[in-house]
Amino acid sequence: HLSPPPSPRCIYIQLVLCPLQSQQTVTVGTIMAAGRVIVYGGRGALGSTCVRHFRSKGWWVACIDMAASEEADENVIVKMSESFTEQAGQVTADVAQLLGDQKVDAILCVAGGWAGGKCSSKDLYKNTDLMWKQSVWTSTISSRLAALHLKPGGLLTLAGAKAALSGTGGMVGYGMAKAAVHQLCQSLGAENSGIPSGAAAVAILPVTLDTPMNRKSMPDADYSSWTPLEYIAELFFNWATGVNRPASGSLMQLLTSGGETQAMAAM
Amino acid sequence: HLSPPPSPRCIYIQLVLCPLQSQQTVTVGTIMAAGRVIVYGGRGALGSTCVRHFRSKGWWVACIDMAASEEADENVIVKMSESFTEQAGQVTADVAQLLGDQKVDAILCVAGGWAGGKCSSKDLYKNTDLMWKQSVWTSTISSRLAALHLKPGGLLTLAGAKAALSGTGGMVGYGMAKAAVHQLCQSLGAENSGIPSGAAAVAILPVTLDTPMNRKSMPDADYSSWTPLEYIAELFFNWATGVNRPASGSLMQLLTSGGETQAMAAM
Repeated sequence: HLSPPPSPRCIYIQLVLCPLQSQQTVTVGTIMAAGRVIVYGGRGALGSTCVRHFRSKGWWVACIDMAASEEADENVIVKMSESFTEQAGQVTADVAQLLGDQKVDAILCVAGGWAGGKCSSKDLYKNTDLMWKQSVWTSTISSRLAALHLKPGGLLTLAGAKAALSGTGGMVGYGMAKAAVHQLCQSLGAENSGIPSGAAAVAILPVTLDTPMNRKSMPDADYSSWTPLEYIAELFFNWATGVNRPASGSLMQLLTSGGETQAMAAM
Repeated sequence: HLSPPPSPRCIYIQLVLCPLQSQQTVTVGTIMAAGRVIVYGGRGALGSTCVRHFRSKGWWVACIDMAASEEADENVIVKMSESFTEQAGQVTADVAQLLGDQKVDAILCVAGGWAGGKCSSKDLYKNTDLMWKQSVWTSTISSRLAALHLKPGGLLTLAGAKAALSGTGGMVGYGMAKAAVHQLCQSLGAENSGIPSGAAAVAILPVTLDTPMNRKSMPDADYSSWTPLEYIAELFFNWATGVNRPASGSLMQLLTSGGETQAMAAM
């Protein structure tokens, strides 16, 4: 006889014994996971904080990044390419192979980066290209992973930026990429957008994240106005478990002042 | 003796005679042009209308497209590439070679296209990729061409879309690309954005353009609600010559009803 289909919140490890005359399947072990999450960019500052936070809550965590995270349960390694369709196809195929028919409770896209430059900067093209790849490629792939692998009622988060709600003349590529991510979030929040029923797409729009790299590059800044990474990891965990989850399509500004952060919908 | 530097609105054709013992430069002809414009996407439906309109007003017109426009004075041919930095570098170098020290009065970026698809569509990646290349690559390159070659007080136009002011779940890639173009326009409208002093970047946000292809694909539509291409060409010409030009950074919705079109700033 066949074992029952896995319940939504369990991962079964099955040993399939296939002697020639037998179809017998024996379940030899079951690891309970409180939930399953994919973290796109799980090796970054915010990403690794999310990986640790969800694992500390007993979740199964898969990391998508350019190298493996030793803290994650599973990894999908992104092969860099100049072709979006090629890279997106590779990541999508590898995630499908990893998950099979299993669905996930949440997909957190926290990939991204920062590069400045006006339109008069000689680095405009290089930096704009980098911003697409880091923010828009990863967000677009995450939207498709949500359509394919997210549970009904699941959560997709995207990484926007408060600055991109208006013009950003000194960082043209960054602003365009983040504005595209915002609009993607709004598209996914529309009726019949293609993500599973009851699932929500929510973007966070931080100002400055309190990362080691930002502290290094801005040593004299007021850190009490920077958003702690652990705050965001916990916010994501709450949203993933249905606590104070904003409506799908929401752009949630993260406003930090005096060490306190508030999440507030834009517009 | 050297000829005087060209006045802003003249194109000089110079024959440089360089026998071994001579530095003589002889100006053999001068063609007066009322103004100079670059049309990025000058072979498209809107682009070719703009090329014709500006030429009919006595302007010198250069076309940037994947093939030459026979209606333009000069052409820059885009070599397709999977690499944005490569393609952008090629176009930028070819325009610099064409113009030399000459500046232009206007740069019209009317390149673009349309492709639909939800995040659940199997064509999501291919169509999103196409939308970047057609709208975001061309707009980003145009912003740099404006920084390098536009006159003080000149005009840069970009091609947005009214639909992308909010979510577009059924056309994810198109919406993201146009939202990025809108934000680019706002960035260029900011103080010290890198475009020349007094120059303006203005985006048009049409709903549906009255093109032959749209008539073919939507034969039963109400054409009186579609925006005529000639209206846009004349609008651009007015803005380029200082007539009713919106503030830099403006997103101008083109609202057509009963055959009448109004240009109205968004937000």
